[in-house]
Amino acid sequence: MNGNSGSWFGYMGQVLRIDLTHYRYSVEPLNKDLAEKFVGGRGFGIKYLFDEVPKGVNPLSPNNKLVFTTGPLNGTKVQSASRWIAQFKSPLTNAYCRSVAGGFFGAEVKFAGYDAIIVEGCSEKPVYVWINDEKVEFRDAACVWGMATLAAKEFLLDETDKRARMVMIGPAGERLVKISALVTDDMRTAARGGGGAVMGSKNLKAIVVKGSKKPVIYDEKAFDELVKEQIEAYRQSPAFEHFRSLGTDGIVYLFYTLGNFPTYNFKQIPFEGAYRFTPEVLASYIVKHNGCYSCMIRCWKTFKLTKGPYAGVVWDFPEYETHWSYGGVLGNCNIEAITYANMLSDLYGLDTISTGVAIAFATELYEKGIIGKSETDGLELKWGDPEILVELVRRIALRIGIGSILGEGVKRAAEIIGRGAEKYAIHVKGLELPAYDPRSLKAQGLNFATSPIGASHCIGWSKFEILGLPRKVDPFATEGKGEITKYVQDETAAAETAVFCTFPLTNEMITIDVCSKFLYSATGIDRFKDPRYLWLVGERIFNLEKVFIAREGFDISQDTMPERILKEPVPREPSKGQVFELDMLLKDYYKARGWNERGIPTKEKLEELGLAEAAKELGIA
Amino acid sequence: MNGNSGSWFGYMGQVLRIDLTHYRYSVEPLNKDLAEKFVGGRGFGIKYLFDEVPKGVNPLSPNNKLVFTTGPLNGTKVQSASRWIAQFKSPLTNAYCRSVAGGFFGAEVKFAGYDAIIVEGCSEKPVYVWINDEKVEFRDAACVWGMATLAAKEFLLDETDKRARMVMIGPAGERLVKISALVTDDMRTAARGGGGAVMGSKNLKAIVVKGSKKPVIYDEKAFDELVKEQIEAYRQSPAFEHFRSLGTDGIVYLFYTLGNFPTYNFKQIPFEGAYRFTPEVLASYIVKHNGCYSCMIRCWKTFKLTKGPYAGVVWDFPEYETHWSYGGVLGNCNIEAITYANMLSDLYGLDTISTGVAIAFATELYEKGIIGKSETDGLELKWGDPEILVELVRRIALRIGIGSILGEGVKRAAEIIGRGAEKYAIHVKGLELPAYDPRSLKAQGLNFATSPIGASHCIGWSKFEILGLPRKVDPFATEGKGEITKYVQDETAAAETAVFCTFPLTNEMITIDVCSKFLYSATGIDRFKDPRYLWLVGERIFNLEKVFIAREGFDISQDTMPERILKEPVPREPSKGQVFELDMLLKDYYKARGWNERGIPTKEKLEELGLAEAAKELGIA
Repeated sequence: MNGNSGSWFGYMGQVLRIDLTHYRYSVEPLNKDLAEKFVGGRGFGIKYLFDEVPKGVNPLSPNNKLVFTTGPLNGTKVQSASRWIAQFKSPLTNAYCRSVAGGFFGAEVKFAGYDAIIVEGCSEKPVYVWINDEKVEFRDAACVWGMATLAAKEFLLDETDKRARMVMIGPAGERLVKISALVTDDMRTAARGGGGAVMGSKNLKAIVVKGSKKPVIYDEKAFDELVKEQIEAYRQSPAFEHFRSLGTDGIVYLFYTLGNFPTYNFKQIPFEGAYRFTPEVLASYIVKHNGCYSCMIRCWKTFKLTKGPYAGVVWDFPEYETHWSYGGVLGNCNIEAITYANMLSDLYGLDTISTGVAIAFATELYEKGIIGKSETDGLELKWGDPEILVELVRRIALRIGIGSILGEGVKRAAEIIGRGAEKYAIHVKGLELPAYDPRSLKAQGLNFATSPIGASHCIGWSKFEILGLPRKVDPFATEGKGEITKYVQDETAAAETAVFCTFPLTNEMITIDVCSKFLYSATGIDRFKDPRYLWLVGERIFNLEKVFIAREGFDISQDTMPERILKEPVPREPSKGQVFELDMLLKDYYKARGWNERGIPTKEKLEELGLAEAAKELGIA
Repeated sequence: MNGNSGSWFGYMGQVLRIDLTHYRYSVEPLNKDLAEKFVGGRGFGIKYLFDEVPKGVNPLSPNNKLVFTTGPLNGTKVQSASRWIAQFKSPLTNAYCRSVAGGFFGAEVKFAGYDAIIVEGCSEKPVYVWINDEKVEFRDAACVWGMATLAAKEFLLDETDKRARMVMIGPAGERLVKISALVTDDMRTAARGGGGAVMGSKNLKAIVVKGSKKPVIYDEKAFDELVKEQIEAYRQSPAFEHFRSLGTDGIVYLFYTLGNFPTYNFKQIPFEGAYRFTPEVLASYIVKHNGCYSCMIRCWKTFKLTKGPYAGVVWDFPEYETHWSYGGVLGNCNIEAITYANMLSDLYGLDTISTGVAIAFATELYEKGIIGKSETDGLELKWGDPEILVELVRRIALRIGIGSILGEGVKRAAEIIGRGAEKYAIHVKGLELPAYDPRSLKAQGLNFATSPIGASHCIGWSKFEILGLPRKVDPFATEGKGEITKYVQDETAAAETAVFCTFPLTNEMITIDVCSKFLYSATGIDRFKDPRYLWLVGERIFNLEKVFIAREGFDISQDTMPERILKEPVPREPSKGQVFELDMLLKDYYKARGWNERGIPTKEKLEELGLAEAAKELGIA
């Protein structure tokens, strides 16, 4: 690799702006003030998006932008810090979305010299962008348009460089399915919020990247020492061995018994098939351990199927979330079908969480008689039917029959179907809930309710309630939940400037103190020395994200929960009788945030965070 | 590449013998007399098999052997001469089988220094063999056992060398499905006769090869000149452009109109969907042209599906035969489903011809009421149903329900089912018929009837009748068909010593004259100068193959045709009214062959061909 003399500090110091309408691109030097204020990654993404995508833009119009970011630590020896982020206005929620993934794409973007890639406009015909260091080409994608991701990858590698990395869309994104994902060459997905449809609306099949630059480190000696300490800390952590052996599959059965892993579209009745998800059973499918760029955890596994109709299939394992969305929430315990449907989702480019919840929604509507065979094209929707799962995944991805309705997400699907269907649509702000029951984990629920992207478990993960980290907290209690929710939200935003993975963060294998040290030794920016500054940046990012959606008209009325979560007590232990006490929890949270009673950041708070401009934009200055 | 000083002439001069029972291997120098007498490829294979696999061996026992061969021209600059052959006693027919495929495996075996690989015995647990030039390792295949071919390939390349080539089996071969294929890393299949099951019975998942030697050429100057002439001849041939643009897909619709492409399990009633197989329609699916090692024809295409339930799939196109076996013979014109089923067949490792004919057989039994839903696990078998096709391919590969019966091939399946099912089982000697109607092409039918491997279109292809090459012959006539059948059979056997592809041979882009020149300039063996000698070798090989099956008890009683072909006149033009006049045709053929009236080579014929030992073995000496 060549040194990158043009960069300053640990940044590559460049933003690549891609204008698909005019097939032009420009390279902008990275603004040093921006770097100091927003650090990188998620910070850069929301700042560009806030400044450049004004209120009211149709998410599928050329005026929406898709910002891909890396961080100051991407492509270095730091462990678990080479993820990449996509930020955009979401066609699923009409709010903001930040979607994160791993693999090797983020590091490669960094090697090519970029801290951010801003995609704007719309090509008149399918294209892909080939970024080879400084060289950027717009290329005809007629041949790969329509291809599943794995096939498109092979063709694109043939046409560019065998060692290139890429982010792309599958047929679902091309068809503007609102729950479609962004998929890397190594099948890592930034799945939530419909980024696939945004890319599809721009007629952009893929961004293919090859880089040859090495990130410059401000203080290599200190940096290397920190990496050694990080590796040692990983080795000492019990979570390390847990993730290394089974990844997120180690917790599936445990979480079911703890009252998470909500069953049967959150009806939460006992799920007899849960025993199939024990660590022993799931471990028996693993044939390979894989890791992202510079991460020793290697939490991503490969499954081999040898039984049933999908025997012979070998694919990335379903994560905890997918065992739930294609399993528990459907009452399905057929691991072969879950793995196969997971494979289809990667090939078509679909968000497995939203897709599974949409299928659960349809199944409950069918059970309740709200829809019948005439709406399902003759399919009989039943809880726990593995073939229906596979068939509906395909129909959603390809917009076939009822699939074209479910692919709009449960919120819009319920509006289309009417007849009280909304009652069974489990979402916040249009984003389908993940595998946690807000009734069993109140701070986790607060995360979902208040998240600017809708019900995401990644925008803040209540490690207090779930792991007792950094201190144990009663999951059912409502007191003090505002403060701890703010804590994990800000912490996550802070770490995602780097771009650190949330697994080591939620397990405290790394801390903001450590992130801060890494950032200082990589960049030499004095402010980063103080971890309190990084916490402040986290809060700044989260607030700016909230202002983005407030500008779009979102307020407390969207910081809510599905009726079932608010009114139906959980019928099974250990959370039996619990509901989600929204009003009380929200009030506590807004107070902790310093926001007003409508859930909007105040002028004072924004000014305190250095976001006076944002306050002005919101009309509260 | 390194020179291979140990070899003589164009041969690498080595035979690798792999003993799976004892995990031993030996390298035997190639016998010069054998080389002179049998040249290479198919000649070597039948010679080893005849000498080493005595009468009565159970094809799925450790005593069966699997011989892989290359030829003196493999891995050189000669065009279309790097195919490889698998020869074995067939578990489908209990006769002999020779199955051929292309890709890059054959050349790689040659680069590793081998003219033949003889696999014998049986491993007690799944293994694969890793051949890296001289180094041969037996390796545990527990991890890849159960994997579809594409996944197994990725794992095996990771474990060996990314540039290695391989032949392997899929789940069908592992499960001993009798119509299972041998599949290369580039998804080329030696599909006919159940080679996959033979490999599976030996617990052998794959043979992975990497070589670094360059074949030595006796007279490089003359050789290079011949290659130039060959390339020029290709360019001049109208068949070249035909194959280059559409491969075998250019003839599908034409052959239907000519009375081939037998419809509805050879009932040959008009097939309305045939219009879907026009060159224009099929060309619209092509997104890539691929070629085997050193072949400028590049007849192997890639299809992209953008419509219907299989949209997103990109895979090797279905050849003429597969458009028929998954299309015409089933009354199915859904090209998407045919392509998808073709993909499944490559992934599972199935012979598409036998599989399609088995499905047609089941469909007709269902139509006739011989089987019902209780035999089909509830499936309603209908002509032209694309979903049933896909489902049955899967069930056959994985031995699920009725699939486990159909996977035995139609001959055994009819025996199992009884109730007159044999009438609808379209096979010769247990091998399912390919996409030619013997009633419309009498010499082609004679090829099927007399072939030692059963109804194969590759053991002799009646170019006289089909293309008018080397001279035009009336396809319906019976006169003189014995002679031309012998001609194409011997010619094919002669060319497959090299190992030449039959496409340029049947289209006379190459001739035995040319083969002969190539062989002489490559090896310096004087005898090869005379093309008449190569014709003699072809006849020798074919006769030895016949003696192999005669020793097993095969005679005229198996040189026959399904009842439908013998008795039911073709109902559609242009072959309307035609049946297959077996007795007359056979008599003529045996006479041309110099065989006795039982269809057995005579002592005189065998001695004339230098096969006195074989005559002795047969007890006619």
